[in-house]
Amino acid sequence: MASFSIHGDIIWTESPDSFRYIEGGYLNIEDGLVESVSSESTSCDILETDGSLVIPGLSDLHLHAPQYPYAGLYMDEELLEWLEHHTFPEEAKYRSLEYAEKAYSILVDDLKHSATTRVSVFGTIFTDSTLLLMRKLSDSGLSGYVGKVNMDRNSPDYLSEETVASISETLRFLESAPECSIKPIITPRFVPSCSDELLRALGGIAEERGLPIQTHLDENPSEIEWVKELCPWAGSYADAYDQFGLLNSRSIMAHTVWPDDGEIELLRKRGAFVAHAPSSNTNLSSGIAPIRRFIDEGIHVGLATDVAGGSSLSLFRMMQDAIGASKLRWRYVDSALRPLRFPEAFYLASKGGGAFFGSVGSFEKGWDADAVVIDDSICRTALRDELSVPERLELYAYRHPDESVKAKFVQGRRVL
Amino acid sequence: MASFSIHGDIIWTESPDSFRYIEGGYLNIEDGLVESVSSESTSCDILETDGSLVIPGLSDLHLHAPQYPYAGLYMDEELLEWLEHHTFPEEAKYRSLEYAEKAYSILVDDLKHSATTRVSVFGTIFTDSTLLLMRKLSDSGLSGYVGKVNMDRNSPDYLSEETVASISETLRFLESAPECSIKPIITPRFVPSCSDELLRALGGIAEERGLPIQTHLDENPSEIEWVKELCPWAGSYADAYDQFGLLNSRSIMAHTVWPDDGEIELLRKRGAFVAHAPSSNTNLSSGIAPIRRFIDEGIHVGLATDVAGGSSLSLFRMMQDAIGASKLRWRYVDSALRPLRFPEAFYLASKGGGAFFGSVGSFEKGWDADAVVIDDSICRTALRDELSVPERLELYAYRHPDESVKAKFVQGRRVL
Repeated sequence: MASFSIHGDIIWTESPDSFRYIEGGYLNIEDGLVESVSSESTSCDILETDGSLVIPGLSDLHLHAPQYPYAGLYMDEELLEWLEHHTFPEEAKYRSLEYAEKAYSILVDDLKHSATTRVSVFGTIFTDSTLLLMRKLSDSGLSGYVGKVNMDRNSPDYLSEETVASISETLRFLESAPECSIKPIITPRFVPSCSDELLRALGGIAEERGLPIQTHLDENPSEIEWVKELCPWAGSYADAYDQFGLLNSRSIMAHTVWPDDGEIELLRKRGAFVAHAPSSNTNLSSGIAPIRRFIDEGIHVGLATDVAGGSSLSLFRMMQDAIGASKLRWRYVDSALRPLRFPEAFYLASKGGGAFFGSVGSFEKGWDADAVVIDDSICRTALRDELSVPERLELYAYRHPDESVKAKFVQGRRVL
Repeated sequence: MASFSIHGDIIWTESPDSFRYIEGGYLNIEDGLVESVSSESTSCDILETDGSLVIPGLSDLHLHAPQYPYAGLYMDEELLEWLEHHTFPEEAKYRSLEYAEKAYSILVDDLKHSATTRVSVFGTIFTDSTLLLMRKLSDSGLSGYVGKVNMDRNSPDYLSEETVASISETLRFLESAPECSIKPIITPRFVPSCSDELLRALGGIAEERGLPIQTHLDENPSEIEWVKELCPWAGSYADAYDQFGLLNSRSIMAHTVWPDDGEIELLRKRGAFVAHAPSSNTNLSSGIAPIRRFIDEGIHVGLATDVAGGSSLSLFRMMQDAIGASKLRWRYVDSALRPLRFPEAFYLASKGGGAFFGSVGSFEKGWDADAVVIDDSICRTALRDELSVPERLELYAYRHPDESVKAKFVQGRRVL
């Protein structure tokens, strides 16, 4: 992989406070890494973008691949009913590789045309269709993680595993995982779906093999009450994961809408990532996570679509929704936590979530060259000639969040 | 205008509770009115839509035409600062007919391609550019109202009128209004921008000439405190409008996020319309209006984009946001008011707001034949063949809210 440069209006965030940008600059890339952002090209191989915006690839820290077929449907229920009525019956279909092929093809193609370059994805309990998903995502050029889901209790018969089988299928999943840009991740659905024995075994596997972990935490008040009943020995929902060895700096905790003070401290101490899914948390009436507090306390936060709790695959839409939700939280819940601003939301979707995957989501020297080219000339406004590069990015994020991107690079490799 | 039929999957709401629909049916139209929805055509002139969805035209009860250039920008401020920093400077530009021509052309073209057929629009204080806006909207085939805005206090010098001049310009506006599908509407910006003398005069003009009225009510707590200081003699913000003759069954009160019990009773007694702008109310950190209570109390409610407080012209997006906001309000403010469901949100955007314009927004016999044809085949899902007509509509509203529509009719006349 040689060196090349992308010429355009380049914008990124190194800290949440503000954008860095250069109009008509060059993103210089060498061997898949960012060499520099400069007013001069360091290579003769230049991609001209005709005044497009060039941003870091975005990271989606939490989505359920099998739920994409009904993203945008059945939005009139809360979490636990919604799982029973819609999620579990749909996920059961992925026992069929034929259905998985049909449904995952659509998801992967839509992700390919989005601004997302990194993903952390829930499959289903079915090992083979989850392996299929890994291959398809890798073929599309995306990078990240896919997990075979574990569920051995409180689940319908048609979507439940025996504890021992769940463990052995997880091992088979790990051993069968293809060598590609999509890696396996340990994926207990959440405490209500997994016995203590299963969670303990998964924590052990993750530790032995140095594997990352993804699960759900504190999404909905009814769910939290249920976890209290299921784990009376745990100090909190987060503590339950912690005691099973599932909460550490390689863990993604999706949602975390209702953490208590002890859980926030535990998340911070363990260095875990919170996947903030504002669209889903609104759609399922879950609530609004205290993201400002997480940021202030130094907890890692990234954005997530949580399809199909979220109805859109767009991380631009998640930026809008993260900002909007934080404003309503400020208004109704805690006026000490000021709303998120646009550069902060962009940071969460790029460098914030990207940190889970390594040096991803910024244009600093030596970082992975994940870059997305956006044609913002589709934003029609009489003010066009007066807008700064950050203003153009905000306009695009609010006006055309679902638009296909123009070009996309993952670790310097063009994938679109 | 002869009779014709539109053949497709026809769906509408007569009450908020549920959809009515027919797959592969005919919307039969005679002389601009709905004759029937039937499995048989009553005309030889049939528009085939190839399995598209056919819905009633949607109504946008509140938007600011001059603010469209920055819709999706500057979303990090609250109402009063935002007005001062962004809104007033931009509106001042419409003193120039040349700028108005340039900016309004973009807005009108985007509205033309949306599912909106009826609008109630704020112009600026500038009479001539507001007349220009009326002509352009009418040329696009849309129907509804445009108002010359009145502002004679607490406004920057460059965007303020003398009281007498504001009244005489309003009269000139009314006399110069073109004979077309876009009619004039009395438009005091809001109490803080209008002296008692001006509001009284505008109430008188509206009454004398039988004109409709649009203004803002109870958007933001700081605004409400300000109105209390400005009108110590009024029982409430709504009562101030009422005493000036500005609150009646031809009035649109935009927002109404923070009404007290007396105001709700007054709105109900007067038969006024509330324009619910959920996207704007989130963007400007205003809050969440108690729409369920309005519906339960029999108050007229329609949806509104409130561009540029709202960043999208799409009423599908407003349906999403109305539902989402109602869920968060249920969760955090008042669990007695259950969240809005999708058929209810669709009803608000069609028949609910349409009622302001007459028999608009439903496919009942004798109603205005406002119809929009939507190509929902762009919604990619493995479940496509299993979806009912209402599910297809929900999917489209959540997944492709900003998409251009395929065809549009206003009172039976094809405009797109």
